[in-house]
Amino acid sequence: MDERRAAASPPLEAALAIEGATLVDPELGVVEDALLLADPARILWVGARSQAPAWRLRPAGERVGARGRFLMPGMVNAHSHAAMTLMRGYADDLSLMPWLETRIFPVEARLRPEDTYWGALLAAVEMLEAGVTAFADMYFFMEETARAVVEAGGRAVLARGMVEPGDGSGERALAEAEALFRDWHGAAGGRIRVMLGPHGVYTTTRAFLGRVAERAAALGARVHIHLSENDDENRRSQATYGKSPAEVCAETGLFQVGCLAAHCVKVSPRDIELLAEHRVGVAHNPVSNLKLASGIAPVVEMRRAGVTVGLGTDGAASTNRLEMFEEMRLASVLQKVRLDDASALPAREAFAMATLESARALGWADEIGSLEAGKACDAVLVDPARSPALWPHFDPFSALVYSAEPAAVEAVWVAGRKVVEDGRVRTVDVERLRHEVTRRAAFLTREEG
Amino acid sequence: MDERRAAASPPLEAALAIEGATLVDPELGVVEDALLLADPARILWVGARSQAPAWRLRPAGERVGARGRFLMPGMVNAHSHAAMTLMRGYADDLSLMPWLETRIFPVEARLRPEDTYWGALLAAVEMLEAGVTAFADMYFFMEETARAVVEAGGRAVLARGMVEPGDGSGERALAEAEALFRDWHGAAGGRIRVMLGPHGVYTTTRAFLGRVAERAAALGARVHIHLSENDDENRRSQATYGKSPAEVCAETGLFQVGCLAAHCVKVSPRDIELLAEHRVGVAHNPVSNLKLASGIAPVVEMRRAGVTVGLGTDGAASTNRLEMFEEMRLASVLQKVRLDDASALPAREAFAMATLESARALGWADEIGSLEAGKACDAVLVDPARSPALWPHFDPFSALVYSAEPAAVEAVWVAGRKVVEDGRVRTVDVERLRHEVTRRAAFLTREEG
Repeated sequence: MDERRAAASPPLEAALAIEGATLVDPELGVVEDALLLADPARILWVGARSQAPAWRLRPAGERVGARGRFLMPGMVNAHSHAAMTLMRGYADDLSLMPWLETRIFPVEARLRPEDTYWGALLAAVEMLEAGVTAFADMYFFMEETARAVVEAGGRAVLARGMVEPGDGSGERALAEAEALFRDWHGAAGGRIRVMLGPHGVYTTTRAFLGRVAERAAALGARVHIHLSENDDENRRSQATYGKSPAEVCAETGLFQVGCLAAHCVKVSPRDIELLAEHRVGVAHNPVSNLKLASGIAPVVEMRRAGVTVGLGTDGAASTNRLEMFEEMRLASVLQKVRLDDASALPAREAFAMATLESARALGWADEIGSLEAGKACDAVLVDPARSPALWPHFDPFSALVYSAEPAAVEAVWVAGRKVVEDGRVRTVDVERLRHEVTRRAAFLTREEG
Repeated sequence: MDERRAAASPPLEAALAIEGATLVDPELGVVEDALLLADPARILWVGARSQAPAWRLRPAGERVGARGRFLMPGMVNAHSHAAMTLMRGYADDLSLMPWLETRIFPVEARLRPEDTYWGALLAAVEMLEAGVTAFADMYFFMEETARAVVEAGGRAVLARGMVEPGDGSGERALAEAEALFRDWHGAAGGRIRVMLGPHGVYTTTRAFLGRVAERAAALGARVHIHLSENDDENRRSQATYGKSPAEVCAETGLFQVGCLAAHCVKVSPRDIELLAEHRVGVAHNPVSNLKLASGIAPVVEMRRAGVTVGLGTDGAASTNRLEMFEEMRLASVLQKVRLDDASALPAREAFAMATLESARALGWADEIGSLEAGKACDAVLVDPARSPALWPHFDPFSALVYSAEPAAVEAVWVAGRKVVEDGRVRTVDVERLRHEVTRRAAFLTREEG
C-alpha cells in the first residue's frame, strides 16, 4: 500500500464487519467475497473485499465471518395489519362479507390495546426471523404496535386506520392519527415512522379524504390506503362517484402528498397513468389477493408505466403467513401465468420489489431497501446450508426467490444491532410471547356461553 | 374394565405408541388427545386416547409423548423428477424451448447414474424433512433413485421415463422399464413400487403408447404419463391425431391399466369425463404450472366429476422447492381466484389432496395416505411451537395448509421407522450429501473451456 495515501486518508473505523459473503443487492447485483463495514447503525462501505479501503475494527467491534452465505438487505413488507396475527387461521375459506361480519368484526370489538401489542410483537418476531426488517402497517391502537416494534428491534411505518361512515367518527380517528404522528414519527432513532391511514375510498367519504390530504400536507406526513383491491370496491366507487378509486384519490389530493396504495389489483390503464404521474407507491400482496379471490394485479404493466411496485403480505387473518420469500416467488410466477410468458418478472425483479421497491413505496429508500454506504445497516445473512431446498444453487437471485425459506435465515441486523442469531430472535422472550398470543386469541374468539 | 372381556381379547402389543397429539387425518378429521399404536411397520389402532383398547408396550418399544403437536399422515408427492434437484435454479425464468435446449438437455446428456443417485437422495431428504414420505417419480437411471429412496428410508413409485421419437429407441427404454419392474416392484419391504412411464402423447407415437398399455397389462403395472400440461401440447395432439391427449390415451388402452396423469391443466369437459370414467388419477402441480406459464388446472371441476386429484411438486428444475405445504396452500388459493370464490377448495380438501387423494392417484391407498389400522405407519409430527407462523392456531386443517412450513416438522416415521428426528433426517450423512450435489451440479453445468 502507498504510505502517503494511507496517511492522507485515515482508515475507516468500523464497529461491525461482515466478511466473505456473496452480496446480493437490488442495485449492486451479485458481489462474491464481499465486505460490509458499519459504524454499526449505518453502512460505511460495502463491496468486493479485494476493493476495500483501509479500515480497522474498533475495540469491542464485531467481525462476522460469512463465507458461503448470502448477504442481502432486510426485506420490506409494504402492507400489513400486524396485530391480526391474533386471528390467523380463524376466518379461512370465507368470502369477504361473512369473513368480516361473522369473524373479524366480533373479534375486533373485543380487542384491547394490550392484545394489539402482543399480536404486533408476534408479527415483528415472525418477520424478523424470516428476514423482514421493516414493514408498513395499518390498524388501530398503533402506539402498542410501535412499542412492540421497538422492543423486537425492527423498523416500521405505522398508520392508524381511519374509516368515516359519514357520522363524523373519522374526525376523532384523525385526531388520534395526528397524535400518533407527533408522538412517534422519527422515534427510536428513526426506526418508527408514521403515516396517515384513510382505510379506503369505499369506507370513507370524499370530503374526509380531502381533509386527510390537507392534514397530511400540513404535517408533512405520507398516506397509506387500500386501493382497487377487487371489482366490488371499484363498482361501489363508480356507483357513488362515477369514478375509479384512483381517480377519487387524485381528485381529493391524496395522491399529491406521497401515497402508499395497497393492492391495486383492478386498475385500468388510466388508473395506472394516475399512479405513475403522482408517483404513488403500490404494495402488491399476491397471496392475499389469491386467497380472497380478488385477482392478480397487473404488476408488469404498472412497472412498465414507471410505477414503483413493492411487495407485502397483508394481515395474517387473510394471508396467514408474513413470509416475503413466498411472496417474491408468487409475485413472479403469477405474472408468468397471467401473461403466458415464463420469462415475465424474473427473480431479480421480484427481489428488487421485496427490498428497494418496497422501501421506495414507503418513501423510505433514503435509509433502507439496499446495502449502500450511508444507509442504515439493515442486513440479512442467509445460510444455504440450513435448508436442503437451497442445494445446489446457481444464480443467487434465483436461489433467494424460488428456493429460500425462513429457516435459511441465520442472522439479521437492524440499524446495526443483531436481532436474530442462529435463526432466532434474541430480543424477545418467545416462550412468553407464544403463551400470550395463544391465550389472548382463545379469549378473543371464544363463543359467548 | 370388564375382566372377562380383557381375558377374551388379549391386549394389543405395540412397538410404537404416539400419545396425546391432535390427530389430523383426511378421513378421521380432527381427534384431540389421540393415540396411535403400531407394530411398528403397520398401524394397529388409532383414535381418541379415551377410546383406546387395552394395550401394552413391547419390551424396547418406543413411547412418544406428543401433546401440543399435530399428528398427520405422511404427505404423498404425486409427481416429481427427483434427480433434477441437481438442476435446481439452473434454468429459471425461461420459456419451455430455451429451458430444454440451452439448459436441461445439455446437462442431461452429461448425467451419469451416480449423479442421479445423489440428486434423488437430496430430493428424498428434502421431502422427508418436509413431511413427505412417498413420491411418484419419472426419470432415468431409476435403479439409482430406488437405491437413494431405500437408503433415505422413504417410499416411492418409480417410472423409467420413455420417449419414442419414431426411431425405435422407445423399445429399448421399455425393456429397461420392464427390468426395473421385475427387479424393484415391491422391494424394500414394499417401500418401492414401479410403474411404466411413457413421457407424454407429444413425445411418443400412438403405436408405442399401445405397446406400453399392453406390457403394463401383462405385468400388472400401472402407468405414469404427462397429460395436457399446456396449450401447445394439446395443439400438437390435435394436429397429429385430431384428438386431445386424453382421447389418445383412452384409445390406446393406457387409461385402462391404471393411470397416473400429471398436470391436466388444459382438459376439456370431455377429457374430464374420460378421466373419471377410466378412474385416472391426476397429479396437480400448482407451482410448476404457474412458473412454466402453463395455466391453472380446473381442479374443482375435476373433483366434482369424481376424478381423483392428488398433489405434486414436479421436478426441482421447474418448481425449485419439493415442498407440499406450499403446494397445498397454492392449490387452494388458485382455485379461489380462478373461480372468483374465496370458499372454493377449502383447507380440508387441499389437505386430502396432499395425502389420501395423492395415494389414490398412485394406486397405493391400500397402504398409505391416511392413518388407519392396517395401513403402513407413515406419520408426521408437526410441532407448532417450532414456527411463529403457527401461532396462534384454530382449525388444524387451516393451520397445516395455510400456515405450516417444513421447519415445523419435528418427526417423521416411514413404515414405523423414525427417519426424521428434531426436524433432521437421521438416515443420511447430509454434510456429504451437500458436498456431493454441489460438486456434481457444478460439473454438470460447467461451460466447456
